[in-house]
Amino acid sequence: MSALPNSAYGQLETLFRRLGAIGEATSILHWDASTMMPAGSSDARGEQLAALNTLSHEMIASRETAELIAASADEATSLDDWQAANLREMRRNWVHATAVDAALVEARTKATMKCEMIWRDARPKSDFAAVLPALTEVVNLAKQSANAKAAKLGLHPYDAMMDQYSPGVRAAVVDKIFAELAAKLPGMIDQTLARQATATPPIEPQGPFPAAAQRAVGTKFMELLGFDFTGGRLDTSAHPFSGGTPDDLRITTRYDEDDFTRGLMGILHETGHALYEKGLPKEWRRQPVGEARGMDVHESQSLLIEMQVCRSPEFLSYATPHLKAAFNGDGPAWTPENLARIYTRVARSLIRVDADEMTYPLHVILRYRLERALISGDLALADLPGAWNDAMRDLIGIAPDSDRTGCLQDIHWYDGAFGYFPSYTLGAMAAAQMFQAAKKADPTILPAIAQGDFKPLYAWLGANVHGYGCRFETPDLITKATGAPLSVAPFLTHLERRYLG
Amino acid sequence: MSALPNSAYGQLETLFRRLGAIGEATSILHWDASTMMPAGSSDARGEQLAALNTLSHEMIASRETAELIAASADEATSLDDWQAANLREMRRNWVHATAVDAALVEARTKATMKCEMIWRDARPKSDFAAVLPALTEVVNLAKQSANAKAAKLGLHPYDAMMDQYSPGVRAAVVDKIFAELAAKLPGMIDQTLARQATATPPIEPQGPFPAAAQRAVGTKFMELLGFDFTGGRLDTSAHPFSGGTPDDLRITTRYDEDDFTRGLMGILHETGHALYEKGLPKEWRRQPVGEARGMDVHESQSLLIEMQVCRSPEFLSYATPHLKAAFNGDGPAWTPENLARIYTRVARSLIRVDADEMTYPLHVILRYRLERALISGDLALADLPGAWNDAMRDLIGIAPDSDRTGCLQDIHWYDGAFGYFPSYTLGAMAAAQMFQAAKKADPTILPAIAQGDFKPLYAWLGANVHGYGCRFETPDLITKATGAPLSVAPFLTHLERRYLG
Repeated sequence: MSALPNSAYGQLETLFRRLGAIGEATSILHWDASTMMPAGSSDARGEQLAALNTLSHEMIASRETAELIAASADEATSLDDWQAANLREMRRNWVHATAVDAALVEARTKATMKCEMIWRDARPKSDFAAVLPALTEVVNLAKQSANAKAAKLGLHPYDAMMDQYSPGVRAAVVDKIFAELAAKLPGMIDQTLARQATATPPIEPQGPFPAAAQRAVGTKFMELLGFDFTGGRLDTSAHPFSGGTPDDLRITTRYDEDDFTRGLMGILHETGHALYEKGLPKEWRRQPVGEARGMDVHESQSLLIEMQVCRSPEFLSYATPHLKAAFNGDGPAWTPENLARIYTRVARSLIRVDADEMTYPLHVILRYRLERALISGDLALADLPGAWNDAMRDLIGIAPDSDRTGCLQDIHWYDGAFGYFPSYTLGAMAAAQMFQAAKKADPTILPAIAQGDFKPLYAWLGANVHGYGCRFETPDLITKATGAPLSVAPFLTHLERRYLG
Repeated sequence: MSALPNSAYGQLETLFRRLGAIGEATSILHWDASTMMPAGSSDARGEQLAALNTLSHEMIASRETAELIAASADEATSLDDWQAANLREMRRNWVHATAVDAALVEARTKATMKCEMIWRDARPKSDFAAVLPALTEVVNLAKQSANAKAAKLGLHPYDAMMDQYSPGVRAAVVDKIFAELAAKLPGMIDQTLARQATATPPIEPQGPFPAAAQRAVGTKFMELLGFDFTGGRLDTSAHPFSGGTPDDLRITTRYDEDDFTRGLMGILHETGHALYEKGLPKEWRRQPVGEARGMDVHESQSLLIEMQVCRSPEFLSYATPHLKAAFNGDGPAWTPENLARIYTRVARSLIRVDADEMTYPLHVILRYRLERALISGDLALADLPGAWNDAMRDLIGIAPDSDRTGCLQDIHWYDGAFGYFPSYTLGAMAAAQMFQAAKKADPTILPAIAQGDFKPLYAWLGANVHGYGCRFETPDLITKATGAPLSVAPFLTHLERRYLG
């Protein structure tokens, strides 16, 4: 941050610092809306958030900002590497904010709000026809928006959509990765199901598991991982998430008193997200280069903790006595081996959010294929339910008997989020590849985890991922951290070892 | 709100609506900082609040706003009464925001932050000398700021200071009211103390009173008063306050498990504040005319509930069985008469925030006299401790043996808030006068309160005070609501009846 404050770049830093602070305020208000806000206050909260969003948009879309962005091109040689990366991310934010004209932005906001409301009603009724007109409008406007961004970014429209969630990641790479997964996973699933059919069945621990006890042990594990409660909180919400800001982490969960296993893993997953935010470069707070790299890298950090680490025999061997003590557990359910069986069950299922790590990518591939066909026009929206069911049969081997558990299950499309789904599976691939690289770089990581010590792991993640923020484009970040471009090999190796070893 | 949107006034409504929404967001973030925020996140919160404050200030202090304010003068005849009042309050906000140049505002912010920090350290040590240099700077800058506002508002500097907290209220009125109180109260206190010395002494209920039980009964009473938990919350904080927004009321309290009486009255006091916000005119949300009238009227609403209503025999006769049940109380402490004795104890005390309703105005008069002398230059800051102790002896009849319980006790001056203290006592006068007028207008009000029914009272308050927002200047509001200008008579009558009747 040594650039002259009067340079175009310096003035952009001032602008983006303020935008960053408003973004943080917005994030706390969103958290509050999900955790603390009384039900009757949502209209007022909507006014507050709309005012902040409009202000932010006006600031980034102003003529002054456009002039500064243009002028900053001449200063490139005077910037250091971090500043140059910051400028690159400023431009990206600016293009995404300004490529689409205000009328289209407003039309999209209205159309998605309307569609989401209809969807909330249509889903339980399995009534796809009811939401089809609104969804048609949402898809048309999403396409128009993608076309506008594509023209400015020099990308294909679908790449422009993905760039909003996974900056720098392109469909050509996703195609290759998803093709390999679609070729390999169905066979592995068959093999795994055959094995599990004859193996010792998992024994469910018997509850009740009081919410307070779940919270206490969850908090304990969060602290082990490195979560600092002087800079964050754990609360409950209907839909668990990781929110707040890097210096004020706010994660949420929900407790099922009949089953602690999902809630606990949910806490650990969100802690993975939160510790990524915590590890972002402090000296670049409230600047674009100091932010998390994208939804894909974010998901890699939650999945690394949940799937790679916390469902591992090493962690479960450490965790089991603590869980047993927390819940006064007794009997054969309370062994690391049994908990590992619970935490590594594979099943063909209809619902993505309930899927295990082996079938999950197929749920994502289905959505990726369908949304690309919808956006390109190869698939008519009216044909979506049938195409969904065919794809389920093809990829996972089962099909829903209603759209409620089919193409109506996820909010994303009805909310206008096209290009988002790939980030889940790109994150899973990156998680496996990073964890493999971390263990290779520091062989003490896994033994430490077996002792409940996450410091070696987080030292590696901090130095190789978190501390870089947006210093590199995602593909470069992964290559730099792991020594190779993103590939499916580490993920498949991980599955082989865990399920078929 | 029928003015043409393109008129200067219409454009000001758009601007102030946005400022109002940002103000609401700020209010929620302040609440969060006092109740939910982890301790380590205060620097980040400071950045967020500073960004919102700076943005708001830039919006109101822009050249465009000045031009709109100027142009709106020509539109006066086209505005209805509410719009005209809205424009008057817009101008007031604009003058207060722009009369002082940015350099002085920044110097004041820095000086008060520094002074407040030194005061926090100096108070427990009774070290006035340590804070004297910083306080000198604060007073000088407050004077400069008041002079700048006074010039723009056409007021005396001290009136300009008061106008920030009690808009429209002038020192000439305060002088008269305070002179009458200073003449009457010391004699009433003597009489009351003599009576209490020979009367049945209050019996303290014996705890512990679990926080959960205090919260439960507090919540019950809040709902009786009309607090709606679908539009508000009750939480705990170190310093109880009423915050949030009219549609999202956030009040706080703290619980002493050895004494429920103070915490309960604190909840009822904050509920009085909150229900004023709730009753503000919905159709003028996020416009200056839709806001609460000032700190004095706000305090009138909390004191009306706490002092006039909830410490009355009528309410305590209703409340006692509920309190007894909530705390499993038994014995002679649990009668309405005994609780009334607890809630109406009068004592000469050193600390304003612990003072009873009879001695409280004298604490305020002391501060008013001293701050006027400080601002006029008649009193040198170095002489403040001695002047304080002399005034305490003169007004209340006791004096502190250290500045910790003397001139260092309140944050206000060290925080730069001159002109604020009168609002406490103006509020107490207005509370008595409004409650007297309400009971006269609707004789069912008091009998209903004795049955736990606050609807008649709040119907009157809504129609005569809350629903007007800033439609009238404070003196006009009080005259309109009660039929007479603000006077001490209803307050003195109330004290006579309660303590000497």
